[in-house]
Amino acid sequence: MQDTPKGLRLHIGIYGRRNVGKSSLLNALTRQTVSIVSATPGTTTDPVEKTMEMAPIGPVVFIDTAGIDDTGDLGLMRSDRTRQMFDRTDLALVASEGDVWGDYERDLVAAFRERKIPVIAVLTKGDETPVAQTVRQSLLAEGIESAAVCSTDGRGIDALRALMARMAPEHAISQPALLADLVPAGGLVIFVVPIDLGAPKGRLILPQVQAIRDILDGDAMCMVVKERELRPALDRLTQPPDLVVCDSQVVLKAAADTPPGIPLTTFSILMARFKGELETLARGAAVIETLAPGDRVLVAEACTHHPLADDIGRVKIPRWLRQYAGGNIHIDTFAGKDMPADLSGYRLIIHCGGCVITRGHMLGRMHAAAAAGVPMTNYGLAISLTQGVLHRALGPFPAAQEAFDSIPRG
Amino acid sequence: MQDTPKGLRLHIGIYGRRNVGKSSLLNALTRQTVSIVSATPGTTTDPVEKTMEMAPIGPVVFIDTAGIDDTGDLGLMRSDRTRQMFDRTDLALVASEGDVWGDYERDLVAAFRERKIPVIAVLTKGDETPVAQTVRQSLLAEGIESAAVCSTDGRGIDALRALMARMAPEHAISQPALLADLVPAGGLVIFVVPIDLGAPKGRLILPQVQAIRDILDGDAMCMVVKERELRPALDRLTQPPDLVVCDSQVVLKAAADTPPGIPLTTFSILMARFKGELETLARGAAVIETLAPGDRVLVAEACTHHPLADDIGRVKIPRWLRQYAGGNIHIDTFAGKDMPADLSGYRLIIHCGGCVITRGHMLGRMHAAAAAGVPMTNYGLAISLTQGVLHRALGPFPAAQEAFDSIPRG
Repeated sequence: MQDTPKGLRLHIGIYGRRNVGKSSLLNALTRQTVSIVSATPGTTTDPVEKTMEMAPIGPVVFIDTAGIDDTGDLGLMRSDRTRQMFDRTDLALVASEGDVWGDYERDLVAAFRERKIPVIAVLTKGDETPVAQTVRQSLLAEGIESAAVCSTDGRGIDALRALMARMAPEHAISQPALLADLVPAGGLVIFVVPIDLGAPKGRLILPQVQAIRDILDGDAMCMVVKERELRPALDRLTQPPDLVVCDSQVVLKAAADTPPGIPLTTFSILMARFKGELETLARGAAVIETLAPGDRVLVAEACTHHPLADDIGRVKIPRWLRQYAGGNIHIDTFAGKDMPADLSGYRLIIHCGGCVITRGHMLGRMHAAAAAGVPMTNYGLAISLTQGVLHRALGPFPAAQEAFDSIPRG
Repeated sequence: MQDTPKGLRLHIGIYGRRNVGKSSLLNALTRQTVSIVSATPGTTTDPVEKTMEMAPIGPVVFIDTAGIDDTGDLGLMRSDRTRQMFDRTDLALVASEGDVWGDYERDLVAAFRERKIPVIAVLTKGDETPVAQTVRQSLLAEGIESAAVCSTDGRGIDALRALMARMAPEHAISQPALLADLVPAGGLVIFVVPIDLGAPKGRLILPQVQAIRDILDGDAMCMVVKERELRPALDRLTQPPDLVVCDSQVVLKAAADTPPGIPLTTFSILMARFKGELETLARGAAVIETLAPGDRVLVAEACTHHPLADDIGRVKIPRWLRQYAGGNIHIDTFAGKDMPADLSGYRLIIHCGGCVITRGHMLGRMHAAAAAGVPMTNYGLAISLTQGVLHRALGPFPAAQEAFDSIPRG
């Protein structure tokens, strides 16, 4: 992670008047997981930038705005130096003590919105004061996201971090490869794609298309076959493929048909790495094997689709969990944009693949779960686990496989 | 075509009061190209159906509504027999002499619209009368398509046929296969997909996705490679593929890299067959080789995209045509929903692939060109022609290849 090029790191600027607690906020945001990698003094014209790791986003750059006069002089907002900082900002925090939200703050927010830079208003005195509550309500009415934090005791900091992950522009969050890194240039992948009745006519689902494209972008080749054609496809090749990727639904058959020497994984596992943190999700999957009757599990979906007859989240997963635990598991189902605020008491969160939400949004959810001490996994990993092939399907990702194996079972 | 199952034929009902010219209209619609394949007298409860060929749609079934009382009695519209006819209708024509458009016609139109059956009002006395013109205007205001025809001299009939093709529900027009018919079950196709700078990130274009899916639906397998990987892909196979399909942009390299014994075609040619009549378009492509200085060519696009710097329709094709003709070609460019009404004077129409319009719409345009005696081809075929490989790329389609070869050159 320390090698992440600066251009791929999210650039965060904390703006605000002097003495509103910008430095304390920075410390609070980065305290738990941060190591200051470098504090590069800029050239005379460059703003100073601090390269750090911040959960849940990962590698970020904080733009040090302490160098400019931040007395609240609106005229300075038009200076070249300020404009230069604005241009580098991917995500802006405008800090205020909450009881002072005036023209300076409003002008800052307007300047970011004009540049289409996402902005979060951060009230640094918590939201105990009625004034701060009024400010937050009027911000909400204008469509401006806000957070109330206390940098000293850390209240609200986790929520702010999750909000930052969600608001960060997708392109500015460093994105792992989908699968091109697993296959050498000139290599060959076989994609195993079941065509079931639910598959839309004349289409492939997006992860399949993304995977094909990623392989082409990586100067490699792919075969696309239905599960029944996997064996004939292997027979038609003069040398084994570098990787087989199958839909989770057919992982058992694909694993049986793919000789042990050939790496195998699933689209769900690729997407889990692409959208979140695979190691965390692998560790969470192992928790399924440790569930005991009476445990509480949250099944969470990012979108509110109409449940199907054999809905995976509402029917299949609950059935599997009860089979694993050998008794009743208390399952709460949740679908929609905002996760329940109180995650305490759950032994595990099983999330959908999150195809409708961004990586930032998913990282925010994973962070919220981690902050509450609740392991998290996803549907795809859970399916491979219940089929008994998750260890093999994590083979191409040794760190995640190790994380999965490391959970003590019974 | 005579073997097209009835279920795949467009079912057209001509409704209207007695003596408004329904039979003459049917004769006029089917006169030029029709052979009555069968006139099945229905069972006592079945409406009589007449199976025919009608340009530009192809195989259709006319539902004979002459058997019901069509005196204009509204009560009869609720009878079981009428409902049964409504249920079978994919496209409804409501005929009227034009000077009588009353409650009966309005109720018919409302009944079809309620069932989401497309409906066309046909005024059988042409539009010479002021009354008919008023009727058409008020229909237009209600969003009801209309046509004015004269069944005796054929005026307006071509326009009505083109309108019928455009209004017909896509599913009811018999659709040729994209490519599954070219590859046996268990067979293998290689798709050659260039990834150029214009390709959207993380995606494949729709024809490529449709082609992959069609192969999977046909129990066959495919490889997807960039043009540079075609040779290594061929080398990795224990036996040659059944077909190579490439993007038109790389057809020259793909043709060079594919041994002569392996059939080769382009996505554009597949889409030309899927969206229109490949033989007609192949014949039109050959006309490019016969262009002479001073000829007029219409370049037609279905959508109004922002022209690119080396826009294929506005820059590349005009340049190629002038090179072929060895002198100036007068080129009109047209983009949008409705083709110019007057096509006379053009030696050739070169149409885009029509990705934004339906097969019915494209057939309507081809029919309009044919009715004006102007050959038509499309961008993809024109590209392969100018690369000198269209004859080979038409190899999988012997009738189209023969049509292409049959045009006398110089």
